[in-house]
Amino acid sequence: MSLKQEIENKLNSLTKPIGSLGMLEQIALQIGLIQQTATPQLPNKKAVFVFSADHGIVEEGVSAYPMEVTAEMVKNFLNNGAAINVFANHNQAEVFVVDAGVASELPKHEKLLDKKVGFGTKNFLKECAMSKEDVKKSLRYGQELANFAKESNVEMVAVGDMGIGNTTTAAAIASALGIELDSLIDIGTVIPQKQVEHKKTIVEKALQKHSPFLSPEDVLEKVGGYCFAQMAGFILGCAKHNIPVVIDGFPSSVGALAAYSLDNSIKKYLFAGHLSAVKGHRAVLNKLGLKPILNLEMRLGEGTGAVLSFSIIEAAIKMINQMATFESAGVSKGDEKQ
Amino acid sequence: MSLKQEIENKLNSLTKPIGSLGMLEQIALQIGLIQQTATPQLPNKKAVFVFSADHGIVEEGVSAYPMEVTAEMVKNFLNNGAAINVFANHNQAEVFVVDAGVASELPKHEKLLDKKVGFGTKNFLKECAMSKEDVKKSLRYGQELANFAKESNVEMVAVGDMGIGNTTTAAAIASALGIELDSLIDIGTVIPQKQVEHKKTIVEKALQKHSPFLSPEDVLEKVGGYCFAQMAGFILGCAKHNIPVVIDGFPSSVGALAAYSLDNSIKKYLFAGHLSAVKGHRAVLNKLGLKPILNLEMRLGEGTGAVLSFSIIEAAIKMINQMATFESAGVSKGDEKQ
Repeated sequence: MSLKQEIENKLNSLTKPIGSLGMLEQIALQIGLIQQTATPQLPNKKAVFVFSADHGIVEEGVSAYPMEVTAEMVKNFLNNGAAINVFANHNQAEVFVVDAGVASELPKHEKLLDKKVGFGTKNFLKECAMSKEDVKKSLRYGQELANFAKESNVEMVAVGDMGIGNTTTAAAIASALGIELDSLIDIGTVIPQKQVEHKKTIVEKALQKHSPFLSPEDVLEKVGGYCFAQMAGFILGCAKHNIPVVIDGFPSSVGALAAYSLDNSIKKYLFAGHLSAVKGHRAVLNKLGLKPILNLEMRLGEGTGAVLSFSIIEAAIKMINQMATFESAGVSKGDEKQ
Repeated sequence: MSLKQEIENKLNSLTKPIGSLGMLEQIALQIGLIQQTATPQLPNKKAVFVFSADHGIVEEGVSAYPMEVTAEMVKNFLNNGAAINVFANHNQAEVFVVDAGVASELPKHEKLLDKKVGFGTKNFLKECAMSKEDVKKSLRYGQELANFAKESNVEMVAVGDMGIGNTTTAAAIASALGIELDSLIDIGTVIPQKQVEHKKTIVEKALQKHSPFLSPEDVLEKVGGYCFAQMAGFILGCAKHNIPVVIDGFPSSVGALAAYSLDNSIKKYLFAGHLSAVKGHRAVLNKLGLKPILNLEMRLGEGTGAVLSFSIIEAAIKMINQMATFESAGVSKGDEKQ
């Protein structure tokens, strides 16, 4: 019998109608397959990695916030004041902030992982966002962060992203990776509706300038961001270390799409923590073939939706281990079992 | 300034784009309005009440499971073997099982609250499900359970339902309370598709036999169930005691609909823990004007979806209290604030 069949048989033996726990059964199955057991264990240690970087495209007026907010929010993360701190603490996950390329010097801090590749990318409407070397370096840094997670005994990670302009960059990357642009552009965190057309025009022009795109690395070089390349490397590394990866909103999921484009086999490690209210997110999750666990109309990023879903994933793991079976509980089976 | 405005101002001062935490902001607002403060506190004690009862209509062959499963599942609850036990434990909620009218004698147990009105209702295809006296008694028992919750210092409750045939009874009640029958009938927990037509015919005939329905009490007498009347009384009582009530799936939500039909003012206390995969649930939540917190394609009942949502509700309460403001964190505001 395959392990998949063994896990499904176990789920069907529990005191509930077959399949009646819906996505929780699918989550338990996926975790079981990752851990290669029908009795998967809870992660002993959980963490969220918040990839922070600046985006040169911001000078085209695509965001409601000035670029300095990226560095200000990093400090907010380090001072435990942001939403991600509250939710990570709520679900007992550690917060690591990655400086993938913030446009200013940041103070040293034990929770701040210095992986700075540059002080923000270049404006990809005018030139390539970064060099080929920077793409390689970013992917390698991401892998190093996955090694760090493994060495720190982290057994489940959330991947968050923060940086002014990140939804514009995410839209450009996702479109260059084959998703229809119309399904990708909206207000981001929050810009007035009239600004949306401007944002779309900027991305369209940039895509025209840089096409054709020859590979995922080529996409990252031309219209990418340091945080996106690092998220991709990080996810590839976590998959190698057998660590489940819970992705968050639109930018985080585009990081996963870049990783998936580099290596389809990572998909078994991916969980979609939530569906955000940012328009492009649904299209990216569809492309990845992932069903979101939560749908709370959030559009904040930082890893907030991913970390909130930890509670559901852990409930699923407890379910498959702790529920009584029809046999052990002496409960009669229904017609469906006959 | 109204309290609502005060809470909204507070939410808008936190370091996130306005409204970007979606439903979590709405949850924090609702909890704040219940507690009458912009700094709502976490519930010190949480509990789920699982209303258990048998339904005479089961003799018409509307369920995949035999009636004795109701009592068997009660024992499973008391032995901590059911899904609701695992999820309640996961979110630190106590499980109380209510014998509202199970069709057999049940053993005494500290977690089993004896509110038995009868040994299952009568078959409402042939006669009234219960007497007028039994409706009154059930509503009163529900209120007594709310008093018990208050005396036990329970500060947030989930309302679960379990009993073979409960979705058939729920459909009859909801239809008699004004919801289109076509939107209410499907496979329940799990019957073959061909049995669905039979189930619908049974409910249609019963509704024809008993109409017109003169009041919510009249509905409960003619096509109700002990658990439904007790859930209604319980929810009315919790509202009186200012206790937030998290409803679960289709039967639980029909209990809330009965309460709402008796007193519209209870709505401010209601949270929809999840949207279940049972077809009628969406129609009932729409009628109540509630947006579900989770949507995990579950169709088990017992309070499982409600209890899983506790984690999200608590995250929302922590969010409004623990996040830094733009001012305290020194984060620049965006255009949206100008």
